[in-house]
Amino acid sequence: MREIKKVDLKSPLLIEGLPGVGHVGKLVAEHLIEELGAIKIMEIYSKYLPPQVIVDENSVVHLLKNEIYAWKGEKKEKRDLLFLVGDFQSVSNEGHYAMIDTYLDIAEKYGVDKIYTLGGYGVGYIVEEPSVICAVNDEKLLEEVKKYGGKFKDNEPGGGIAGAAGLLLGMGKLRGLDGICLMGTTSGYLVDPKSAQQVLKMLCRLLDIEVDMGELEKRAEEMEKVIEKIKASEGGVKEPLGKKEEYLGYYV
Amino acid sequence: MREIKKVDLKSPLLIEGLPGVGHVGKLVAEHLIEELGAIKIMEIYSKYLPPQVIVDENSVVHLLKNEIYAWKGEKKEKRDLLFLVGDFQSVSNEGHYAMIDTYLDIAEKYGVDKIYTLGGYGVGYIVEEPSVICAVNDEKLLEEVKKYGGKFKDNEPGGGIAGAAGLLLGMGKLRGLDGICLMGTTSGYLVDPKSAQQVLKMLCRLLDIEVDMGELEKRAEEMEKVIEKIKASEGGVKEPLGKKEEYLGYYV
Amino acid sequence: MREIKKVDLKSPLLIEGLPGVGHVGKLVAEHLIEELGAIKIMEIYSKYLPPQVIVDENSVVHLLKNEIYAWKGEKKEKRDLLFLVGDFQSVSNEGHYAMIDTYLDIAEKYGVDKIYTLGGYGVGYIVEEPSVICAVNDEKLLEEVKKYGGKFKDNEPGGGIAGAAGLLLGMGKLRGLDGICLMGTTSGYLVDPKSAQQVLKMLCRLLDIEVDMGELEKRAEEMEKVIEKIKASEGGVKEPLGKKEEYLGYYV
Amino acid sequence: MREIKKVDLKSPLLIEGLPGVGHVGKLVAEHLIEELGAIKIMEIYSKYLPPQVIVDENSVVHLLKNEIYAWKGEKKEKRDLLFLVGDFQSVSNEGHYAMIDTYLDIAEKYGVDKIYTLGGYGVGYIVEEPSVICAVNDEKLLEEVKKYGGKFKDNEPGGGIAGAAGLLLGMGKLRGLDGICLMGTTSGYLVDPKSAQQVLKMLCRLLDIEVDMGELEKRAEEMEKVIEKIKASEGGVKEPLGKKEEYLGYYV
Repeated sequence: MREIKKVDLKSPLLIEGLPGVGHVGKLVAEHLIEELGAIKIMEIYSKYLPPQVIVDENSVVHLLKNEIYAWKGEKKEKRDLLFLVGDFQSVSNEGHYAMIDTYLDIAEKYGVDKIYTLGGYGVGYIVEEPSVICAVNDEKLLEEVKKYGGKFKDNEPGGGIAGAAGLLLGMGKLRGLDGICLMGTTSGYLVDPKSAQQVLKMLCRLLDIEVDMGELEKRAEEMEKVIEKIKASEGGVKEPLGKKEEYLGYYV
Repeated sequence: MREIKKVDLKSPLLIEGLPGVGHVGKLVAEHLIEELGAIKIMEIYSKYLPPQVIVDENSVVHLLKNEIYAWKGEKKEKRDLLFLVGDFQSVSNEGHYAMIDTYLDIAEKYGVDKIYTLGGYGVGYIVEEPSVICAVNDEKLLEEVKKYGGKFKDNEPGGGIAGAAGLLLGMGKLRGLDGICLMGTTSGYLVDPKSAQQVLKMLCRLLDIEVDMGELEKRAEEMEKVIEKIKASEGGVKEPLGKKEEYLGYYV
Repeated sequence: MREIKKVDLKSPLLIEGLPGVGHVGKLVAEHLIEELGAIKIMEIYSKYLPPQVIVDENSVVHLLKNEIYAWKGEKKEKRDLLFLVGDFQSVSNEGHYAMIDTYLDIAEKYGVDKIYTLGGYGVGYIVEEPSVICAVNDEKLLEEVKKYGGKFKDNEPGGGIAGAAGLLLGMGKLRGLDGICLMGTTSGYLVDPKSAQQVLKMLCRLLDIEVDMGELEKRAEEMEKVIEKIKASEGGVKEPLGKKEEYLGYYV
Repeated sequence: MREIKKVDLKSPLLIEGLPGVGHVGKLVAEHLIEELGAIKIMEIYSKYLPPQVIVDENSVVHLLKNEIYAWKGEKKEKRDLLFLVGDFQSVSNEGHYAMIDTYLDIAEKYGVDKIYTLGGYGVGYIVEEPSVICAVNDEKLLEEVKKYGGKFKDNEPGGGIAGAAGLLLGMGKLRGLDGICLMGTTSGYLVDPKSAQQVLKMLCRLLDIEVDMGELEKRAEEMEKVIEKIKASEGGVKEPLGKKEEYLGYYV
């Protein structure tokens, strides 16, 4: 863990967008960081991440990491924000618990009292009109989310919420932190900027902020073309898309 | 680990019913907790459980956990009871040993001197008339179990008893605790309330308590219908049931 | 770890026969313990063993364990012996290193200066006339082993020696302990008392002791019949034996 | 960890050549150790290596290990060198991080300020004319590498650099150490001395040293014959080489 910059924040909200299903959460959080101009304040390295480095466009290697960005609310009535993004989540079960504990330690250090986790909800087929399903870690939060148009589905996702998006809420609750999870429906096979747009809209309503969505729209249009090509090359739906697991590897 | 409620118990018996083969032990222990009105006194969280949360019918997430319930024996001659139930067992080998050590620490703290573990004994085919096979962690216990109608089979189960049902007996013995394991024969493919009924009957005789079995009977009848449907849709027994591993996933 | 009995030994030799290829080492060590009347002095429990218990012929469960037996050399000129046997070896890589460290701590406590490890060398086909291949952890030991008829093959086994039989020699050397490994050639698919006989003969020459081999011979004859049956039921060698991995599971 | 010999070095460079893709790095580092006459100064044992020993041509077993060799620059203007070579890399994710930390501790102890890591870059087909792709852990190093003829490719390798070759650069950077990785293109299926020759040439230019390449050339020619035989036995390219994963096992 390495602190890059000291910042003074007033009880910020934490927004998690680590890689996951359809990279929905990652797209949303990185878009917000870009549009708001949040600054990086911390890098988190861990033995629970894969033992490798990535090589950037200048042939410079970088150890895999997670990062914390900070944004100071422009006006008095806006809440400060912390963003948790990164290259990977833990590759071991026990590592997940250890890393979430670290995130929560950081959150508490900055006085976070509420966490928003963002993710995708894989349904197994191309979703034309993605919707957003919400979950909370305390019943008292249901009303607030509904007020801003959040939808809930009983017992959904049926398999639970795996990884950081779920654990930050579950383990955060044990520390007395409120938590809301926003999941955009998505195929689960492709990076999904269209689903990310819906999650972003919902999050902006909850945070009462406005951001330009142009970049995400552009990426969504590009992905639409990719999907058209896939469908064409398949002559329709001869092979179910579900079989082609290499897609995510390719387009991520 | 979080203590919910302080209770004063007099050398209680510990009854373990964590998820396992056919969820037999889980069905029995949860039925007893419900019928006796046992109260939750402790929640156990662990990095050895899967890194995820479950979402309940109100869209509220819950960190995976094990739980301890307590019941004070109504009459003077009844023993107090502790129940160990939960969402999952450890997903790692070493985690199993660590979690059992925690359970035994709790048991010793409350003065437990005898443990009953409940489970299913998978035989690979639908069992019309489930029976209960017993095992103990000390020869001196054989007589007691036989007196109440418990049956033993030499070297059964041949593969040993895996997970909490086995380790609580084996590791408990090293701490001087007596242990009895009751296993209901079951297919291993489906949740089996019928097998759970037999285990419950045997346990009640051993504990000298009586509980209504209506709820388990109802679930057993529903499961009978499910099995009939499966058989019908298969046109008999064309495909052996053993191949359909998705069954347990679906009906649990 | 549990000490059962205190014994006073004079710089004993350690003989390892944990389960492994063809259970050759296990057969030899258990045969020696039986014939010499060695007594159990220690039980070793570990989180690195599988998380389960075994059920004996009286329906009594036993936590998986390793055991140390001791034998006091009858005459003045005989060396005292320690035996390391057990139900299982570690199921994790790191656990192997941890358990071997424990074994070596025990060995050093008793003043052991030389270790014999026993195992099978799987060749992939039924071996009619098993032979014994030796390896040592110091060149100075080659002469001694050759003197007693031990055979060596350069770079054999090519894949190295895995588990306790290898690590006790390698890690023992770092502590200054001499080590000799005796491996009986065996198919690798079946428990092999015939191969064990050859290893036992070699070990007895090295230790300058004599034991009755009747029990191992009987088991070898029984196994010969099993092999005949397998060959007959296959109508010869239609299916290569190597495919039938369930054999070891069945006959162990 | 065992220190074999104390040496006095003046801020040496560290050159890593542990086993990896095509064993390219291993071939280069071991060739340099041989040609320069570097001496072994340290052995590193670890529970993160596979739990086994290797058997040498004299039937003497050796615990798996990594080794540090040292070479004192002959003339005043030559830098001293440390080499990191060995039998295996860690077999667990977390073990990789732990072992790299140990290597870097050793490096810092000797005053290393720059690390060269050597490896292969698997492309999936036989490479007739291997080239060398470079990566660095700091932009300031790009110019130096280019000056000596090093080639870079944006975002290559696309999957990042796994294991010691990558982590030494990434984790070394966090300690302020410069790092350069040289990767020879190779099929990934066969040990590749031809690719190693190219990496060695590049490394010698960077280090400003000269060594005889005869031995590597001889091995490259032998390997050429092996490849010819494989192609002949396949009657050309009927089966893609990529399917034959046993090749590496056989020829290593």
